[in-house]
Amino acid sequence: MQYSSLNDFTKNYKKLLEEQLKKSIDQLAAPSIIKDAMAYSLSAGGKRIRPLLLFATMHAFGENPQKGLIPAAALEMIHTYSLIHDDLPSMDDDDLRRGMPTNHKVYGEAMAILAGDGLLTYSFHLLTQMKTDFSGDTIVKVIEIISQAAGPEGMVGGQVADMEGEKKKLSQSELEYIHIHKTGKLLVASVLLGAVLSKGSEDQLEQLTSFAQHLGLAFQIRDDILDLEGDEALTGKPVGSDMYNHKSTYPALLTMDGAKRELDTHIHQAKAVLSELSLDTKMLEAITDLVANRVS
Amino acid sequence: MQYSSLNDFTKNYKKLLEEQLKKSIDQLAAPSIIKDAMAYSLSAGGKRIRPLLLFATMHAFGENPQKGLIPAAALEMIHTYSLIHDDLPSMDDDDLRRGMPTNHKVYGEAMAILAGDGLLTYSFHLLTQMKTDFSGDTIVKVIEIISQAAGPEGMVGGQVADMEGEKKKLSQSELEYIHIHKTGKLLVASVLLGAVLSKGSEDQLEQLTSFAQHLGLAFQIRDDILDLEGDEALTGKPVGSDMYNHKSTYPALLTMDGAKRELDTHIHQAKAVLSELSLDTKMLEAITDLVANRVS
Repeated sequence: MQYSSLNDFTKNYKKLLEEQLKKSIDQLAAPSIIKDAMAYSLSAGGKRIRPLLLFATMHAFGENPQKGLIPAAALEMIHTYSLIHDDLPSMDDDDLRRGMPTNHKVYGEAMAILAGDGLLTYSFHLLTQMKTDFSGDTIVKVIEIISQAAGPEGMVGGQVADMEGEKKKLSQSELEYIHIHKTGKLLVASVLLGAVLSKGSEDQLEQLTSFAQHLGLAFQIRDDILDLEGDEALTGKPVGSDMYNHKSTYPALLTMDGAKRELDTHIHQAKAVLSELSLDTKMLEAITDLVANRVS
Repeated sequence: MQYSSLNDFTKNYKKLLEEQLKKSIDQLAAPSIIKDAMAYSLSAGGKRIRPLLLFATMHAFGENPQKGLIPAAALEMIHTYSLIHDDLPSMDDDDLRRGMPTNHKVYGEAMAILAGDGLLTYSFHLLTQMKTDFSGDTIVKVIEIISQAAGPEGMVGGQVADMEGEKKKLSQSELEYIHIHKTGKLLVASVLLGAVLSKGSEDQLEQLTSFAQHLGLAFQIRDDILDLEGDEALTGKPVGSDMYNHKSTYPALLTMDGAKRELDTHIHQAKAVLSELSLDTKMLEAITDLVANRVS
């Protein structure tokens, strides 16, 4: 299928994703309160950047992205669980996310912990339900990639490093360790999953990993820039909140100009990798532009 | 290999399990503090009943239980994560487990949440590492069983029902719902995993499910009895703490005599199922006796 723009592509697959997420929760034989708590945070919206990266990668290979709906839903569930747990009083203690009360503010702390646990565990169950479209070996590879990216060697490890690094002045390499693990690994996994489901070669997987690593760092640098220059109505958080919370950021480390140069470098490198691939990468390029210029 | 008693069998495989758990944590490329927090609760001991059920089931099929070390470790990690999260201040708020400070008492609440998240996620990654011994399809089946048993349709759902039912007088069927989900499903999964790894037939899987369901309820009834008649030094918790916390229990519902009769019935039924199987079930029978008579 041809799409005239990323916008059409996004609109189409976001709709399919929302349906998949809703169906996945609806079909659970579980107490209704936990289904509500899981659905509440899942439906809070967001950019759905991980699913989109997966869909766009499959599209680049000429594969039907619709076959990636289940892993896309799993990625979004894992991302959502991480937000629910990060927002908890003992973690970042956030009352609002995207202008809505956080999960524990609505359902209480215990239920929020369980909603996160439920989303994480259920995401792996969903991945086992791809048997009609993919072989056992492919499913195992998918679960291997996603569990490593989300676990102690990935997102959980990054969150730990972030907590340990709070209120301490970090070096650029320490800051990068945090971002590469806390957000980068799952973004890389999203692209890799798309490639694995499309039977990409080892070389292609390696290049796409490099692409996604640059994209992940660009995503985070843009986040830090938006904290200082963003529009509160769009970002959903007060301007300067990172600074107020003494968080180490790229602008603080490199100056605002330096951070913008660093962002440009990563965007440039991400696109350079894409241009070397003999794939139809225009959706991935458009996502890269989106990350470079995003305002929320 | 022949074992003269469950004791020898247990001793051998518990040792191999401890080694597998230690190795699994050691090999993680992750911040040392999260590895410590994960290892702390993993090494706090316990009966290791889930791994033992898996090993004993493989033994019943004449399969080498050593091939089940990774899924056994994964089961124990999932059980351990559930204990860490259950003990949190917003959940049961327990300071001690088996006479040791709970995870959040040692590492703080945020790290305890992450240690639980890390163990859960890592358990799925470990399961993907069985590729030398098992096919992709078998690994997917294993992950399917374990994630369903641990998720919203299993353990997480049971924990939610338990919270919802607190301080309310429950009927026997409500109480059974909680136990079947909160502890039963993962016990059933342990036996099923052993059968799947041994290429058991659908009929055998069904019978072993029935066995494990009775065993799971017996386990829980014995727990309730021990709360009132147990030795505090052995159980590690004050006599009557369930009653003090207004928890619904079998003795409260059925009288102590009624609870003991119910326990006998489930033990009897569990053994009846075993006797119908054309397998070498003596280790499973010995575990059943252990559950019936356990003092801790």
